[in-house]
Parts: sequence; structure tokens; C-alpha cells
Amino acid sequence: MSEENNEGLLIVSEDACKSVIDRPSAFKAVENVFAAMSRGDAYNFPVIREAIGYADALYGFKSGFDRAGKSLGLKSGGYWPGNAAKGLTNHQSTIFLFNPDNGKLRALVGGNYLTAVRTAAASAVSIAHLARKDSKVLGMVGAGHQSTFQLRAALEQRNFEKVVAWNKDADRLGNLQAVAEELGVPFESVEREQLCAEADVIITITSAFEPLLMKEWIKPGTHIACMGTDTVGKQEVDEALIAAATVFTDEIAQSISIGEAQHAIKSGAIKESDITTLGDVINGDHPGRSSDDEITLFDGTGVGLQDLAVASAAAKLAVEKGQAQHISL
Amino acid sequence: MSEENNEGLLIVSEDACKSVIDRPSAFKAVENVFAAMSRGDAYNFPVIREAIGYADALYGFKSGFDRAGKSLGLKSGGYWPGNAAKGLTNHQSTIFLFNPDNGKLRALVGGNYLTAVRTAAASAVSIAHLARKDSKVLGMVGAGHQSTFQLRAALEQRNFEKVVAWNKDADRLGNLQAVAEELGVPFESVEREQLCAEADVIITITSAFEPLLMKEWIKPGTHIACMGTDTVGKQEVDEALIAAATVFTDEIAQSISIGEAQHAIKSGAIKESDITTLGDVINGDHPGRSSDDEITLFDGTGVGLQDLAVASAAAKLAVEKGQAQHISL
Repeated sequence: MSEENNEGLLIVSEDACKSVIDRPSAFKAVENVFAAMSRGDAYNFPVIREAIGYADALYGFKSGFDRAGKSLGLKSGGYWPGNAAKGLTNHQSTIFLFNPDNGKLRALVGGNYLTAVRTAAASAVSIAHLARKDSKVLGMVGAGHQSTFQLRAALEQRNFEKVVAWNKDADRLGNLQAVAEELGVPFESVEREQLCAEADVIITITSAFEPLLMKEWIKPGTHIACMGTDTVGKQEVDEALIAAATVFTDEIAQSISIGEAQHAIKSGAIKESDITTLGDVINGDHPGRSSDDEITLFDGTGVGLQDLAVASAAAKLAVEKGQAQHISL
Repeated sequence: MSEENNEGLLIVSEDACKSVIDRPSAFKAVENVFAAMSRGDAYNFPVIREAIGYADALYGFKSGFDRAGKSLGLKSGGYWPGNAAKGLTNHQSTIFLFNPDNGKLRALVGGNYLTAVRTAAASAVSIAHLARKDSKVLGMVGAGHQSTFQLRAALEQRNFEKVVAWNKDADRLGNLQAVAEELGVPFESVEREQLCAEADVIITITSAFEPLLMKEWIKPGTHIACMGTDTVGKQEVDEALIAAATVFTDEIAQSISIGEAQHAIKSGAIKESDITTLGDVINGDHPGRSSDDEITLFDGTGVGLQDLAVASAAAKLAVEKGQAQHISL
């Protein structure tokens, strides 16, 4: 921002992000940062989240520093429920990357597309490390904006032969069906009990405030990635399932406070020490799945470092591919 | 950050800030936001401040929302002690302004110059509202980077006829002397006791961790603006002076935790309810100075809303004067 900022500033737009970031890059970025978090090389700063008392908006920041990946910065933005009526996206976010060597702003990266990509990458990393190798059926619970990102990333992790899906409003399953058909995987809309009876891997990506999946429905050996719960009060699966599963997460502090594990922790059904970071599995400090009968569950709460990791990857790729604007300050 | 962001993004560089923002604009912006805070129309979000364990850097955010002034956003940055050796400023900061109506990033504003300007504006607002009208001598304690900004803003608030100044290293008073001489005001380097004996208004702007000014040195009727203390442990004046003065501040929560009042609160010399916001004086909800003998003290802790207020003013002026870059996203 002055004559001394000779590096200038990179601008990586939403369109550039869509054009340059592919699923393998996002997967690698998220896997690396989960590993760095568990090694103590990366940590998230406290989350700021404020109902600002204007336009019914929720606004805030997720931020952190990854010493290994040299990512420092924040994702800022929020939820503006009136935007849709104006033709804008309700969720708005931007990622700011700073140079950890001198504190200067290095890049401004669109955060809307990357938020979906990094969330899908997190469940994909959990499937890669925790699901049975012979998993054949993928179950999808929820059909909102992020669900197709989840489906595409998950299908790349195992040789899935079928997708079964459920949504509160079954009429909205068309987007998931279209992706499955595009990729040549048979698709079926089912009830929840049938979904659990068939699926080897289940992804929940909803905004539910009560359990949608019950322990007694789940087959031994299933891997479940709970990706929807990121706030006090939300819940996608029942406590008994959490208690029966081996629970992994991105960040334990978030898992027990705002993640899927919050309810089981509150009731005493599990303890904090029952939860393992996925990074420990990636690093080889925890063996992960121990048998073909074990139920594994990944509580994906969403951390700022994921945003910084994919934004750093996007910025690097955008520069290489000539898709970043350079602003001289 | 997408085709739907028709407003684009404003870039207001450090150089543009220096060119467009004048002291009256900064004064008005800070006075207005202090008033809005006290009316409950504006509030600061929790401060994030992290020693990142790399490059000895301190990094973080100050953020908030002013419903009246429509300012939403944050100042991000920190302190990189190794920068000076590379020819860079140790303190680095950038201000990000968001549109409160839809959550989109609206402007990116250089924060280094504005941080000095908004801090000087805060003490100037305190002098305007709390110092005796017949104040003749201004005392300056501290001669660092921010001190000349403080001096220029303060001299505009009363008909000062003399500046007395002290610094730990008296050889560094040259910058202050040059400003006083430029403005035609006699300048004298003095010891601290003499400074207190002469000055009607005193500004402390140091990084001290022990009291520099003692209660028994201060004349009745003096106004003191303590602008240096923004961290646990820092201290510029002794507790007895805090207890003897009528204490005002920008934000009470910061004053009692990281501001000059922290020590007197901790020891029980004063209570939280003894402190008044400067906004209450601006709004007419508190009479301010009650007599010519009263010692008034402003504990200027520095809040995110000050940064947002001056950045909003700078962005508006930069657009009017053709000094903002417009980036289409």
C-alpha cells in the first residue's frame, strides 16, 4: 500500500478461482493443512461471528497461520439473507492472504467458490483416509448448493458403483442425479433407512437442527462424513451414533463446541479425548480405521486454515496460468 | 469477486490516503464514531491479536460495525520487528470495508498512515471536548513516529502559545521541534516535572511499561490524553493520577483491560463505573469538565471503529478527488 510495497497485490477473482483450482489441488491443500495443524505447525485464531443487527446479516472472520505452508490471513464475510431477492449470493466471502515474512497484504481471493471446494475436499480427505477400500455405495444426505461439490470429490476417492440420496424435499435431488449420471454412476432417490442400509460411505451436508440418521440404521464398517454442523444447536446424526463411532475431526476445539460432536459431549456420551484429529491419521500418528466393522465418523466443522490453504493454491495457480490481476500499490 | 459484483472494488493506496485525508475530516470521522458508539449505534467486535511464532510477528484484527456511518469491516495487520532492516515499516496494516447492505467487499484502504491520523484525531477530540478553553501550554511526552501527528492535531484545538516536550532520549525531540517551529509556536525541551508544572494539556504517546508522570506533578485543571497504552502491562501515568482525575475513554471494555486505566482498576483505586465514554460528552449525555480545577484524563486505547471511520472518509474523498483505483471483479 505504499511505494515500499514493490510486490504489489494479486487479485484472484471468483471466475479465476473456478478456472484454476481443480479437485486434486484442493484435496492436497486441505490434506497438507490438516497434517500441519496436527503437527502444531498451523493453528486457527479465534473465530469472530457477529449478528450485526442490520439487514439480518451474520458477519465475521475465520483466520489462522500455517507456518509450513506459509499461509497467513483470514476469510471475511457472512450471510446476507436479503441478497437472493437482489440477484446476489446470500453467502459472501473474500479471502485475504498476507506475507508472513513482512506482514504485507499479498492476495485478495474470491471466497464463495473456494468455500464449497474446500468443504468438499475435507470430506474427500476423510474418505481417502478412513473409508473401507472396498466401499461401493455412496449415500448423500442433503441436496443444497454444496452437495454436488461433495459428490464429485467423494466419487474420486473409491470405486463407487452407486449413489443413493435423500433430501427433505426429494424434488431437489435433480442436481445430484445429474452429476451422478454425468459420471456414469447409477443414482437412486431413497428413504433415509434404506440409504443407511445400502451405503458404505455417507456424507451429510444439511442445515438440520435435529438428527436425520439413527445409529441402529447404520451398517458396521460405514464411514460417515458430517459436513453440515458448524453452529451451536445444529445436528445431523443422533448421539448414540457418535458414541458408537470412532470420531475424527478437523479441529477438536470446534468439534466439541459447534460441530456434530457438541451434543454427545454435552450429554457426556463421549469425552473430548475420544476424538482424534484427521491430521493425526494423515501424519501416521493414529492408525485410522482398525477393522472392516468399525464405524468411522468425520466431524467436519470447517476451519479458517482450509480457506487459506485453498486460496494459497488458487493464487499460485492463477499466477502460473496468467489469471491473476496484479495491482501495484 | 464475480460477474454479479457490479460495484467493483475501490483501492485507496497509502499515497492516496496521504493526499486526500486532512485533519478536519479525520477529526469529524472519529468524533462521529465515538458518538455513535456511546449511542449504541456502533460497536467493536472482539480483537484478535496473536503472536504467530514466526518472524517475531504480532498479527491480528480490529473490527466493528457503525450502523449510523454505515462502516463495516476490519483493520488487519501487525508488527514485524524485522521489517526495518529490510527498508519496510515495522507496523503494517490494511483496512477492508464491506458494504453492510449486501456483504460485498467495497474498499481496500492502506492503514499505515491512517493509523497515525486516527490516533491523533482521538486525542484532538478529547482536547476539544475536555481541555480548558484558556489552555496555553501543550506538553508532549514521547517523540516516536506518531508524536508529530499528535502535535499537529492538538495545536489546532486551542490557542497554544508554547510546546514543552520530553522524551527518554532527548536527542530525538528534533521532529517535534521542527513541527512547532513550522507552525510558529515556541518549543522547549524540558524534564518531566517541569513539563507538568507548565502544561495545561499533556499528551503521552510512548510504549512505556512504568509510570512516566506522577500525580503530584500535575497542575489542577490539566487535561491529559494518554495515547500509548494498548496492551496488558503498558503504563504511562501513575495510578494515583488516574484516581484523582475524571477519566474518559474511547471504549470502557478496552480501557479497563488493556488501556491506561487497567492498573487502577486492578488495584481497586477506581471502579469501571468511574469511567465515562468521550462519546457521552460529545452526545451531551455527560457534562464533561465541571470546573477549571478538575483534572481530566482521556484513556485513548484505539478501537477498530476509528480505523473504519477514517478509512470510509478517505475512500469517499479519494473517489471525489479521482485518487481511488477502481478494480472490476
